[in-house]
Formats: sequence, structure tokens, C-alpha cells
Amino acid sequence: MATGVWLAGGRGSVAVTSIVGAAAIRAGLADPTGCVTELEQLRSPALPALGDLVFGGHDPATTRLCKKAEALAAAGVVPARLVEAVRDELAAVEPEIRPVPVAATQLESAALIAEDIAAFRFRHSLERVVVVNVSSTEAAPAPHPAHADADALRQALGEPGAVLPPSSLYAYAAFVSGCSYIDFTPSTGARLPALDALAHRHAVPYAGHDGKTGETLVKSVLAPMFAMRNLRVRTWSGTNLLGGGDGANLADPGANAAKATSKQRVLGETLGYEPQGNTRIEYVDDIGDFKTAWDLITFSGFLGTSMRMEFTWHGCDSALAAPLVLDLARLTAAAHRSGRSGPLTELAFFFKDPLGGAPGPAGGVPHALAEQWAMLASFVRGLADA
Amino acid sequence: MATGVWLAGGRGSVAVTSIVGAAAIRAGLADPTGCVTELEQLRSPALPALGDLVFGGHDPATTRLCKKAEALAAAGVVPARLVEAVRDELAAVEPEIRPVPVAATQLESAALIAEDIAAFRFRHSLERVVVVNVSSTEAAPAPHPAHADADALRQALGEPGAVLPPSSLYAYAAFVSGCSYIDFTPSTGARLPALDALAHRHAVPYAGHDGKTGETLVKSVLAPMFAMRNLRVRTWSGTNLLGGGDGANLADPGANAAKATSKQRVLGETLGYEPQGNTRIEYVDDIGDFKTAWDLITFSGFLGTSMRMEFTWHGCDSALAAPLVLDLARLTAAAHRSGRSGPLTELAFFFKDPLGGAPGPAGGVPHALAEQWAMLASFVRGLADA
Amino acid sequence: MATGVWLAGGRGSVAVTSIVGAAAIRAGLADPTGCVTELEQLRSPALPALGDLVFGGHDPATTRLCKKAEALAAAGVVPARLVEAVRDELAAVEPEIRPVPVAATQLESAALIAEDIAAFRFRHSLERVVVVNVSSTEAAPAPHPAHADADALRQALGEPGAVLPPSSLYAYAAFVSGCSYIDFTPSTGARLPALDALAHRHAVPYAGHDGKTGETLVKSVLAPMFAMRNLRVRTWSGTNLLGGGDGANLADPGANAAKATSKQRVLGETLGYEPQGNTRIEYVDDIGDFKTAWDLITFSGFLGTSMRMEFTWHGCDSALAAPLVLDLARLTAAAHRSGRSGPLTELAFFFKDPLGGAPGPAGGVPHALAEQWAMLASFVRGLADA
Amino acid sequence: MATGVWLAGGRGSVAVTSIVGAAAIRAGLADPTGCVTELEQLRSPALPALGDLVFGGHDPATTRLCKKAEALAAAGVVPARLVEAVRDELAAVEPEIRPVPVAATQLESAALIAEDIAAFRFRHSLERVVVVNVSSTEAAPAPHPAHADADALRQALGEPGAVLPPSSLYAYAAFVSGCSYIDFTPSTGARLPALDALAHRHAVPYAGHDGKTGETLVKSVLAPMFAMRNLRVRTWSGTNLLGGGDGANLADPGANAAKATSKQRVLGETLGYEPQGNTRIEYVDDIGDFKTAWDLITFSGFLGTSMRMEFTWHGCDSALAAPLVLDLARLTAAAHRSGRSGPLTELAFFFKDPLGGAPGPAGGVPHALAEQWAMLASFVRGLADA
Ligand SMILES: NC(=O)c1ccc[n+]([C@@H]2O[C@H](COP(=O)([O-])OP(=O)(O)OC[C@H]3O[C@@H](n4cnc5c(N)ncnc54)[C@H](O)[C@@H]3O)[C@@H](O)[C@H]2O)c1
Ligand SMILES: NC(=O)c1ccc[n+]([C@@H]2O[C@H](COP(=O)([O-])OP(=O)(O)OC[C@H]3O[C@@H](n4cnc5c(N)ncnc54)[C@H](O)[C@@H]3O)[C@@H](O)[C@H]2O)c1
Ligand SMILES: NC(=O)c1ccc[n+]([C@@H]2O[C@H](COP(=O)([O-])OP(=O)(O)OC[C@H]3O[C@@H](n4cnc5c(N)ncnc54)[C@H](O)[C@@H]3O)[C@@H](O)[C@H]2O)c1
Ligand SMILES: NC(=O)c1ccc[n+]([C@@H]2O[C@H](COP(=O)([O-])OP(=O)(O)OC[C@H]3O[C@@H](n4cnc5c(N)ncnc54)[C@H](O)[C@@H]3O)[C@@H](O)[C@H]2O)c1
Ligand code: NA
Ligand code: NA
Repeated sequence: MATGVWLAGGRGSVAVTSIVGAAAIRAGLADPTGCVTELEQLRSPALPALGDLVFGGHDPATTRLCKKAEALAAAGVVPARLVEAVRDELAAVEPEIRPVPVAATQLESAALIAEDIAAFRFRHSLERVVVVNVSSTEAAPAPHPAHADADALRQALGEPGAVLPPSSLYAYAAFVSGCSYIDFTPSTGARLPALDALAHRHAVPYAGHDGKTGETLVKSVLAPMFAMRNLRVRTWSGTNLLGGGDGANLADPGANAAKATSKQRVLGETLGYEPQGNTRIEYVDDIGDFKTAWDLITFSGFLGTSMRMEFTWHGCDSALAAPLVLDLARLTAAAHRSGRSGPLTELAFFFKDPLGGAPGPAGGVPHALAEQWAMLASFVRGLADA
Repeated sequence: MATGVWLAGGRGSVAVTSIVGAAAIRAGLADPTGCVTELEQLRSPALPALGDLVFGGHDPATTRLCKKAEALAAAGVVPARLVEAVRDELAAVEPEIRPVPVAATQLESAALIAEDIAAFRFRHSLERVVVVNVSSTEAAPAPHPAHADADALRQALGEPGAVLPPSSLYAYAAFVSGCSYIDFTPSTGARLPALDALAHRHAVPYAGHDGKTGETLVKSVLAPMFAMRNLRVRTWSGTNLLGGGDGANLADPGANAAKATSKQRVLGETLGYEPQGNTRIEYVDDIGDFKTAWDLITFSGFLGTSMRMEFTWHGCDSALAAPLVLDLARLTAAAHRSGRSGPLTELAFFFKDPLGGAPGPAGGVPHALAEQWAMLASFVRGLADA
Repeated sequence: MATGVWLAGGRGSVAVTSIVGAAAIRAGLADPTGCVTELEQLRSPALPALGDLVFGGHDPATTRLCKKAEALAAAGVVPARLVEAVRDELAAVEPEIRPVPVAATQLESAALIAEDIAAFRFRHSLERVVVVNVSSTEAAPAPHPAHADADALRQALGEPGAVLPPSSLYAYAAFVSGCSYIDFTPSTGARLPALDALAHRHAVPYAGHDGKTGETLVKSVLAPMFAMRNLRVRTWSGTNLLGGGDGANLADPGANAAKATSKQRVLGETLGYEPQGNTRIEYVDDIGDFKTAWDLITFSGFLGTSMRMEFTWHGCDSALAAPLVLDLARLTAAAHRSGRSGPLTELAFFFKDPLGGAPGPAGGVPHALAEQWAMLASFVRGLADA
Repeated sequence: MATGVWLAGGRGSVAVTSIVGAAAIRAGLADPTGCVTELEQLRSPALPALGDLVFGGHDPATTRLCKKAEALAAAGVVPARLVEAVRDELAAVEPEIRPVPVAATQLESAALIAEDIAAFRFRHSLERVVVVNVSSTEAAPAPHPAHADADALRQALGEPGAVLPPSSLYAYAAFVSGCSYIDFTPSTGARLPALDALAHRHAVPYAGHDGKTGETLVKSVLAPMFAMRNLRVRTWSGTNLLGGGDGANLADPGANAAKATSKQRVLGETLGYEPQGNTRIEYVDDIGDFKTAWDLITFSGFLGTSMRMEFTWHGCDSALAAPLVLDLARLTAAAHRSGRSGPLTELAFFFKDPLGGAPGPAGGVPHALAEQWAMLASFVRGLADA
């Protein structure tokens, strides 16, 4: 089941950690800690093996993969000895991470992206390719009428000017190439009616949005705890300090806003009301890849008694994200193989801002981690049965 | 469905907070925050209403209920205005909390306990009575051969000397009186083969052990989070600072050990291995009823990267416990009514050290809060159907 | 030594906590915890006694003092029993807190302020009056040429329009009335060359700026610790969550900026360089008067090893501020009596943003708490000798 | 001013970090962050230069220095590149760290220790030698009458059996060899009347006890802060989680008790009363050399209002200790040179449990860091003048 993983943002921290890790696990040098599809309850022959994954991608950056991997080792994200050990594998992937094609119109750019993916697929005799967006977070794009309709979109892309943000152009290129698509970022990605229609038309599935790796992961178990105990959350205020490439990018107000919105959704949808307080992201260069998040939660209990909880999370973002990228690639490829198309709402477990509406009588996607887990487990069982 | 709640430890903090709260909610002066049986998903006509509960109990202490309630108000556990408002109800309960009967043999003591309960039941025309142990935590008792067999136990109780710790004597008296029994403490309670046999013989259910109100509650959602994400917890070390009556009692090494054991069980059983680190309880008079717990968790993720999380929980123990006592009384009474007898393993949601074996292929009781919740919800639905 | 304390903002939290506290201590119902002039090392006959203080002031709010005091008691800032006990004293102060005079020109407004103070002084046969600004934080005013010169200022005030922000108008009125002035807020107050000249001309002292009560207090001992140990602070990032009247006011970006600037000065001036990171103030209504601040400090030590410290401060702002207001009034009155005029840089111990330049070869005011304390102690000794 | 630094425990973490660091700084590969004698305010020509220090010592362990240094690099205590760079210097020190001599009586052992030191001194033409105890913490020894008198001690040492714990035997050997002595540990060291007499007799100075590197350092600035503000500390409860060699050793109850006592002294002596709460040390292997300490402080302010502060300290113990060992060696050697003998109470800045009595009217040693700093600075100035 040779499966291509085409990484938009292939020279970034998450991408390179994923590539190093997959190679190290394949070589038996590391165990698959952090990969949920390697848990006994989720392991399935329906998924391509970790060893079946072949990496390629696009990135405007030109840092060589082994240089980036060394930088990640220096920052404590991956062990230096593993980087040494997989040097050959990184050299093999090196030419597969290509510059971002730029043409006169976005339609031509998309065509060049599709060509790169097709050549990659042919070169490695891949059964299928999953396009994964792990590129820098974008600001929300200006609305455009062509976002609503697949044919209007094609038309508009053919004219000069930017109709789609990069994340969505990758989704467009993926769909028209018959590839599934995952958005690991808070960017727009496939979340436009025109793109959703296109995914259905080309019978490919897609997943997203925004990998859930730190503070929001904790929220997705603590908020249900308060709800299950009928305790009233009054304030939930969070501060995220982070450096690294993603941190620098999030210092931009537009990107920051996109991210902060992703991060708060879990509260309203799990609790059924909005507590006071915001989530803030602050860029602190010195913090590097190890994010520190602090959250204060005040709540009232029986007869109104005030109580409080606070937590500090000190996690390595890329190390938390990378195994999920591998999981998502395997799950989405298997879903594609089994004939699924359109949004994979069952993968909510992985995302801060999962595809699918708010939970309610008419369905919707749960935000409590345990419910998301149950949904994921049944999804995996369904793949095996298919 | 007038239902008696007979509180062993009826003048303690948990007991009095429960009595004040039930009265205040009944009077429409407070909403039932903290009561899980008042959540939409669990509300059921099979349960006695909060207004159906009638309180009595035993306690060697002689502090009047209204004095204790005022002390709780001064400590910020309950609002002073509510204590004022339910003064008459407290006065009505006052004579129902009786001194602990002491006789020449434990058998005679048990008979006197049973008489007190019977008189209470008759006085208030109660449909049934639930005995709830909220008395001071005991040290583990010395083993005794009569603990293994109901008939040998009766025999041994008739001789001078202490065969059972107080918590178990209350269970004995409850069962022979046809009453159900809940142990909200880490004490032995009904956890002896002889008492289990007796519960079945008298067709009454029982529940326990040790109300889950603070640090362990948080553990029961965070430990599954790490497990679901295939992250390896390396250290989990906790410090609990608490004052109040329970804190003073736990300063005793025997009681402390019983409690600390209760509190760690969730980790091993949820993670499948024992992380390093202990849970410590320290008595600090000045902290009073507002416990502060601090936990440090170190874990490793993808490729072995080390990360950490810490949390501080600042909760009012009695305010967290009291609504659960009301919930448990209602659920246990309804289970009794529906014909259940023996251990109510479905109530694991409420306990640090729930009845039922470790989870495994042969069943066992889950320690993850979300699974316990699902079990509880189906239990409540089952009651309604019965 | 009957001494008037004229509070601009006399119906606010800090003011009313000060009034209640002074009355309670005078009546022997509370001890002077939090008052530094009551420490053995600083007690001095040169200071007016706590019992010598008489309160009056201006405030546009009309809430009665006893209502405000009850609200403070409900919020846990002051004990309810003390509010009960000093009801008569509050009633006596009630008419002394007067509406803010507004006239056609600021000069006329200042004249009315001066009249109110003069009448207060006469009514109570006060030896002298200290004007203390504890009113809402203002945004920084637009620069005006008349700020540079006392005579130009008087001229400009006589014309319509606002030349001075309220805090500075109080300073103007104080100085021309022969009263000393303290700015407990980050507002402009007396920090204008024209006002400094006026203080010298009328031979009155002044003090400020911005009472140091929480996170900045902790910074003023931790930053010197890092400096004395030759450890390099890399990041210092703070989050302050606060509610209450002051919190609501600080939600205004202008006021927030004034405050955040005050709060960071200690770092640069103690360490000799600016670490990364900011201080943020977030308004969270539910937090009320009990501010929660969280600070993360990362630092490097021997051979560059990275380490970190974090702290959470959960303090009641008004309870921390009020005793300092009493201290400052006593100290400033004594300084006035002893013949001091102009800025009292020796009172830096009390302020986030103390009067006086950065420390350097040419002098300047220290930001390390221990040095500020030594300066304060010698100031007090000096008063006694005078 | 070639100066010998003879390390009892020369193959331990603190010792090897000191040796690596001194070599790296000498070679211009690292700056002297963490060394307080390199601060502008304390730099003095009276001190031997860092480059003047020559290392030797005793240790029963046989791990080679470069292996230990590599282990420290792997644990993140020192940078791997520095260990590489100073490999030759480590090889040069290697033969100077000798096995601990053991003979029939302690007197003969002391003679062998003294011989090793003398040979080291001769080999390197050292002007003087400072013996520094950085060996494992001992339990408190049994009292012995000979501890009180220098001559009785010599007599008793000549008989079989252990009269002195190892730390004190090193002090004995140091003093009779005319060497100064520093105890960086909580062990007994020179704190016996007989040894003090001996130091005076041989005209050598000594310093101690127990390097102040983490939680106690923070206490020594926070406790004075509360005192200076007249705030009443009610609870101060600390938890220290640590691994590494020292952590394993402190898991022993005797050693743990010695350390915990050192750590609390600052509170009583700075505040003037003992707050509630204890300090606990827990060994957690996984934590390694990066200790995590959590402290909760509750305090009351004006009118009794309750407030709280908590802090987490995440420091690398050996990296904090090593520069202080270098500072102490330089300061003690200079003191010796200037003619000082007996206890160097002016070095309290460096110690948890400094030599010298409680502060009081009759003098005594301060525990507030800023006062200790002032004392240290004047001590250094005094050396220069001498
Ligand atoms: N690390 C996490 O825990 C985590 C969690 C959730 C989401 N994310 C998201 O994943 C993304 C990647 O994070 P990262 O830490 O690897 O960031 P990074 O800055 O290290 O990498 C982003 C890469 O994208 C490249 N890029 C920029 N524009 C591009 C374009 N138009 N086409 C292709 N590549 C482009 C950049 O050159 C860079 O190499 C971010 O959007 C981040 O928000 C990360
Ligand atoms: N508060 C919580 O969050 C919580 C959570 C779990 C378990 N618990 C357990 O609940 C129990 C009660 O806690 P609390 O805070 O109310 O303690 P408490 O000390 O305020 O009350 C205990 C009461 O039990 C009484 N008592 C002692 N021996 C007795 C006996 N033989 N028979 C009857 N009464 C007796 C005491 O006189 C006292 O009034 C404790 O065992 C505690 O461990 C409490
Ligand atoms: N509480 C603290 O720890 C602390 C510390 C440092 C500084 N401060 C400063 O002290 C001030 C008061 O704080 P607070 O918590 O009492 O706030 P508050 O909002 O409770 O009180 C401010 C009072 O000022 C009044 N006011 C507004 N404009 C006025 C004017 N022009 N003239 C006179 N009064 C006016 C308001 O009506 C209000 O009653 C704020 O500026 C705050 O930043 C407080
Ligand atoms: N690291 C810190 O921050 C810090 C702070 C204060 C005090 N200390 C103290 O410094 C000492 C050393 O700490 P460490 O982390 O280097 O510990 P470590 O365990 O790494 O080193 C101690 C060394 O002492 C050796 N040793 C044991 N018995 C000996 C003896 N009789 N003679 C000579 N050597 C002997 C051991 O073999 C070991 O190599 C401990 O007592 C510790 O409590 C350390
Ligand atoms: Na904290
Ligand atoms: Na913390």
C-alpha cells in the first residue's frame, strides 16, 4: 500500500519532525510513542503501514532537510542521534520537497502543483497520495463570490489575482488530482463550498482543521469534566507563549486571530455556554519550540462556592504534532481507499476546530475527547469491515 | 418516595453541607449546581426527588447543626444567607442526629444502631433508608477470620472486643435492617466478604469507596488523555494540602495511607503501568476546607521528547462532596427499589476507589471518567425502564 | 497632629478600604497588618498617628460609603463584622466625600477643589492636608506647551478646554493650597515640570507613582535575585487577570498602556537589560477584586543551561493598597512638617514607577525592594532627627 | 596566585560541572554567567583568577571524569560541545581525583588525606589549597564527647571506630594541613567545637553550610518581601522533586532530614515566627538533575484578608551550584591569604544554613539575600584593602 504524503510546508518543523520520525521508527530506532494508530485499540490492517509512507512536498524555503533536522535536534525536538541515523533517508527525500510553483494565474499554479504531485506519484508507484497542509498559518482571506461554486471558482482562478489563499489552492490541486487532503493548520484549506463540492465530485475525502496538540487538548478533557460534574465554569483564560517558526508567524495579528478562534471553540460547544476570558498567543523567541501555556479556570460549585484550577502545559509542539500527521495520513488514505469522500468528521479527535457543525439534536461533531475517541475507534473498525 | 438518608458522621462538614444544600435547593434558594442527577442527561423519574430526602444519622460530636453550619459559612463553604434561611430545617434535623450507641459487644451496638434507624424510618414514614458513611477516615483494621463469613461474623460480634471498624459496623447494621449503604470514605465499609454476603442475603445494594472530588477527579480525565494520545507518563507526583476536620484526621499516618492508596489507583488502571512519584497529603490547619493540590506530570512523546504539565486545584472539599452525597443517596435508593442487590459497580463515576476489579478482558470497572459517565448514564436509563 | 487625607476617588475600592481599615484599627478591632509604618523598624513619633487621620475627598460616584463597604465585604475584601462595627465612622465621613466640582474653566474648577479642601481643613482644625489620588486610571494626556512652565500653566487653565488631566488638576489645587500630594495611580499627577515648579514654589512635597501591590512587588525582589546571582533572565512574561472597578477601567487601551509601562520598568532598571516578553492586563469580571497574576521567567545559568521559574500571585488589590495609602499619607505629612518640598524619591518602596531617574553613576532611584527599604528606613530616621 | 581546589566528592555532578566550567571559561568558550565574583560590583584583584584554580580531590567512585562529563551533557547540564572542547583538561585532572584513603583508625585516614593534599600542592606549586566538600549528604552523626575539644578529638581519632563523619574528617585533615575548608553540603563538616578550635589554632578560615541554589534562594528574597510589607505569612509549604545522584542519596531519611532542616531556617529567622507547613524532598528518578520545586504561601494582609502565592522553580541543581563552588574557593582562598581564620560568616549569601547565630540584638547572620549581598560586598572590599 505505498502511500504518498505530500507536505505543503515540507521544510517546516512539523513536516521535518514527521519525516525524521517515520524513518527512525521504520528503522527500529524509536518506538511509535505519540502515534495513536499504533495503540492496540486502533491498530488495523486497513491502514497503510508507517513503512508504506513516502514523503514529498512544496516549500518556498530552501533550508536543506538535514540542516533543519539538525536545528530541531539542537532545540531538543528530536534526538541528535536519530538525525544522524536517518541522514540517508533525509537525503532521499531532499529532492522531493520542491519550490512552490508560481505562475501568471492561480489556475496555472494549481496545474503546476498537480504536475509535481503526479510526477511524485509516478516516480514512486504510489497507490495514492494524501496532501497535508503543514505550512505557515494564513490570515483569513477576503470573501469572494467564486468560493461558493466549483465552476465559478475554476473560472475565477483563470483570471489574474488571488482568489484562494495558498492552503485552499493546495486543496484545489489535490482534489482535481484525485488526492485526499488534510489541513493541519487553522487556515481556510478545504472549508469553502466550492472545494467541498469538488471533493465530492472527485470522490476524495478531506480532514481538518488545526492539529490539537497542547492547551486545547487539555481543554477537551477538562471542559467535559466540569460539564459531567454539573460545575459552572465562570472564567477560562489562557496564555500561550511560543517561539519557533510558527510562533513568529502567529505574531501576525491575522494569523493569531485565526488560531485563537480555533482554540476557544471547544469551550462553548462542550459546556453549552461561553465562560469569561480569552486565549492569548504571545510570541517569545527564547521559548523556541517548547510552548508554555497557562490557563486559569474559575468555577462555582454547590451553593455557588467559588473554586479555581490552573494548569501549565510545557510541550514541544512539533513533537506533539508530527505523530498525528502520520496518523492522519494513514487514516485518510485508508478512508479514501474504502470509498469515502467529503469531510471526515470522524477525525475530530485530532483537531482543535473539527469539520462538522456544533453538537445538537441534529447531530454535529463532539468536542469532548472521549467522545471523539469513541467515534474514531468506530471509524477504524468500519474501515476494517469495509 | 420519602427516602431516609442516615448519615454516619452526621455533624461533619460533608454531612452538614449536604443537609443545608438540600434544604436550600428545596426552598428554591439555590440551584442544584454540582448535583449530577440534575443534569438533563441523567434526570429521571425513577429517582426520589431532592425534596423527598429526610436526614438523620449518628455522630459522637455534639456541636449543634446550626453552629456547624455557621462555621461552614465563616469558612466560605456555604453562603451565610443560606444558613440563615434554612435555620428551621436544621432545627428539625437536630434531634435526628443521635449519639453513637455503645454497648458491651459490637452485636449489641449494631442492634442499637438498627433501632435508631428503624425509629427514624417509622417516625417519617419512609419508603426506605440509605445509610451513608461520611464519618472520619479510619485506619485499616486488623484482619480477622470472621471477616470472611457472614455467620462467623455474627458469632464473633457477640463476643467482647472489636471485630469490625465503625464503618463496617454501620454497613452490618444497615444490611440487617434492609437498608442500602454507601461508603463515601476510604474506610473498609462493606468491603469484606462477610458483608457482601449479607447484602445479597438481605437483597440490598451498596456503593463506594471514597468520594472523588478533587485531584483524583482531574486525574481521571488527564490520565486517559495521555493514554488516548499514546504519550508515556513518566512521573506523576502530587501534593495535597488540606486543613479542616478531615485534614486533621488524615494527619494520622494510618488514615493518610488509606487515602493515598485510593488516590493512586486511577493511574495504574488507566495507563496500564505505574508512573514514578507518589501522592502526599499534608495537614495545614490554615488551609481549612479549601484544599490545594499540586500535581507534576512528566511525560515523553514522539521520539522520546520530554514534556511536562502541572496543575493546581484549589477546591472546597465539602462543597464538592455534598452534592455527590445527595446524588448517591438518590441513585442507591432507586437501585434498591428496582431490586438491585450487592455492589453497585456502575456508580464508579463518584469514587476514587470504586467497587469492582481492575479493567481487563474479564470485565472490571473503568477508571476513565468518560467511561464511568457512560456507564452511569446507562444505569440511570436502566432504572427508568425497570 | 490632626492630619487630613483628601482622597480623589474617595468612593472607590482603595479609598473605602482605607477608611474602613483606619477606623477599625483605631477602634482596636484589627491590627495594622500591611501597614509598613507600624513595623518596629519604621515606627516613629515624627509621623502622625493612625488615629490622627481625618478623611475627606472628591468622587463623581454617589454610592454611599456604607453601601460600598458592604459590597467590599461581600467580595471578601474586608470582613463584614468590621463594616458593621465602623458604620458610625463611615456615616461621619459620608458628607466629606463631595462631588467633583466642574466649572467653565479648569482654573475655576481648581479653585472649587481648593475651597472644598480649605473648608474641610477648617472644619476639623487640621494641621495639614495630604491630597491622595486614588481615582480611576487615566489615559496619558495630549502634550501641551503650558505643561512646561508654572505661569504659562495658570494662564492656560484660565481658558476654556482641558489643559490638565484630572489627576494633575488635583495636584495643582493641592500645591496652590499648600497641601502635599501623592499619586497612587499611574496617571500623570504631578509629573509635569510646571507642577514640580509649583510644588517647590509652595514648599510642599509630593510622591508617586502607582502603588506597588502585586506582580510588580514580586518582580522587585526576584529581579534583583537573578542579578545578584549573575543569572541571565531571557524571558519575563506576565498575565494579570483582574475584575473590579479598576479592572473595568483598565480594559480601556489607554489606561492599560499606562499601567503596563509602569509594571515593566523594574526589570530593565534592575537587570540592566530588557528581557523578552510583555505584561498583559486582562479584564475578567468574575475575578473581582482578587487579582490573579501569572509570570513565566526563563533564564540561563552556568555554561548557558536553560532554567525557568513561574509564579502565581492571587492577591486582593484593595487590601494590599489600602494600608500603603495610610502609610504614604503619614509619611508625606511628616515630610511636609519637617520642611521637605518637591519629589519624595525616598518613597520609591511604595511605587511601581517611582519618581526619580534610572539608577546610574549620577544617582537615580533604585528598583530593588531591599534598597528601597533601606532608603525608606533612613528617610524615617531623618524625619525623627529633624 | 596558583590555588588548589581539593574536592571531596570530586567525581560527583557538582564537582565535575565546576571543573568543566572553569576550563571552558578559561579557554574563552563560555562566559562566567552564574559566577557572582565576576559581577562588576564584586570583581577584585584580591581574588585568585578563575584561571589560577587547579583541581584535585577524593572520591570512592571510579567513573572517569570525561564519562561523567558526557553523562552531564546527555542530561542537559552542560553543553556537549564544551565537554568535547575541554577533554584534555579533564584528562589532566583525572589522576588528581584519588580514591578515598581508608586506614585502621580515622587518625591514620586523616593523615593519608593530608598526604594526598600535600603532594597535590607540591606537584602544582600551589600557593594554598581550599578543601571543598561536595560529597554525598550524610546523616547527622551520633554525638561524641570528643567533638567538644580539639585534643580529646585527636586522642579519640587514634582509636578504632568512627568518631567523625567523613565531612568532618576532611575538615580535620584540611585544618591540620593549613588548608581552608568549605562545606557546600548540609553535612556536619566543620561545625563541631573541636574543629572550630582547630581552625583557629592553625589560623585557617572555613565556610558553610549547604549551597543555596533553588527553592531556598527564592525563599531568601520572598520571605523578606512579606516581612518588609508587614504581611503575615500563615503557611509556607514546599515540595522538591529531584533525581540524580544527590536525589537518590536524599531518599535516605537521615540525609533528607538534614537537608529539610537547612531549607526551613530562612523562614523563621527572616519572619520572626514559624509559618505552618513543611518542606518535603521526594526522589523521582525521571526528574534527573533538573529539580522541580513547588511552594505554596498563604498570607494575610490588611484586616486579615487571605491571599496566596505559589511558585514553581525548575532549575538545574549542578549548574546552579558549580559557579558558586568556584566563587567560594576564590573568596575563601583570598580570606586565608588576608589572614582571616575561623568561620567566614560574611559568606552567608551562598548558603542555606549559614554559619553564625540567628540575627538578634547581639548580632547574628542575616538570612535576607539583599542583606547577605551587602555583607558580601563589604567583605570583598575589605579583602582588597587588606
Ligand atoms: N506544531 C503544532 O503543534 C501545530 C499544531 C497545530 C497546527 N500547527 C500548524 O502547522 C503549521 C506548521 O507549523 P510549524 O511549526 O511546522 O511551522 P514552520 O514555520 O516551522 O513551518 C511552516 C513551513 O511552511 C512553509 N510555507 C510558508 N508558506 C508556504 C506556502 N505557500 N506553501 C508551502 N509552504 C509554505 C514555510 O516556509 C515553513 O517551512 C502551522 O500552520 C501551525 O499553525 C502546528
Ligand atoms: N470532603 C471531601 O471532598 C471528601 C471526599 C472524599 C471522601 N471524604 C470523606 O468523607 C469523610 C467526612 O469528611 P468531612 O470533611 O465531613 O470530615 P469531618 O471531620 O468534618 O466529619 C467527620 C464526622 O465524623 C464523625 N465521626 C467520627 N467517628 C464517628 C463514628 N464512629 N460514627 C459516626 N460519626 C463519627 C466526627 O465526629 C465528625 O463529625 C471523611 O472520611 C473523608 O475522608 C470527603
Ligand atoms: N488596588 C491596587 O492594588 C492599586 C495599585 C496601584 C494603583 N491603583 C490605582 O488606584 C486607583 C483606584 O483603584 P480602585 O481599585 O479603588 O478603583 P475604583 O474604580 O474602585 O475607584 C476609583 C474611583 O475613582 C472615581 N473617579 C473617577 N474619576 C474621578 C475624578 N475625576 N475625580 C475623582 N474621582 C474619580 C470613581 O468614581 C471611583 O469611585 C486606580 O487608578 C488604580 O489603578 C490601585
Ligand atoms: N547541586 C546543588 O544544587 C547542591 C546544592 C546544595 C548542596 N549540594 C550538595 O552537594 C553535594 C554534591 O551534590 P551532587 O549533586 O554533586 O551529588 P553526586 O551524588 O553527584 O556527587 C557526590 C559525590 O560524592 C562522592 N562521595 C560519596 N562519599 C564520599 C566520601 N566519603 N568522600 C568523597 N566523596 C564521596 C560520591 O561518590 C559522588 O561522586 C551533596 O551533598 C548535595 O546535597 C548540592
Ligand atoms: Na501554578
Ligand atoms: Na504553576
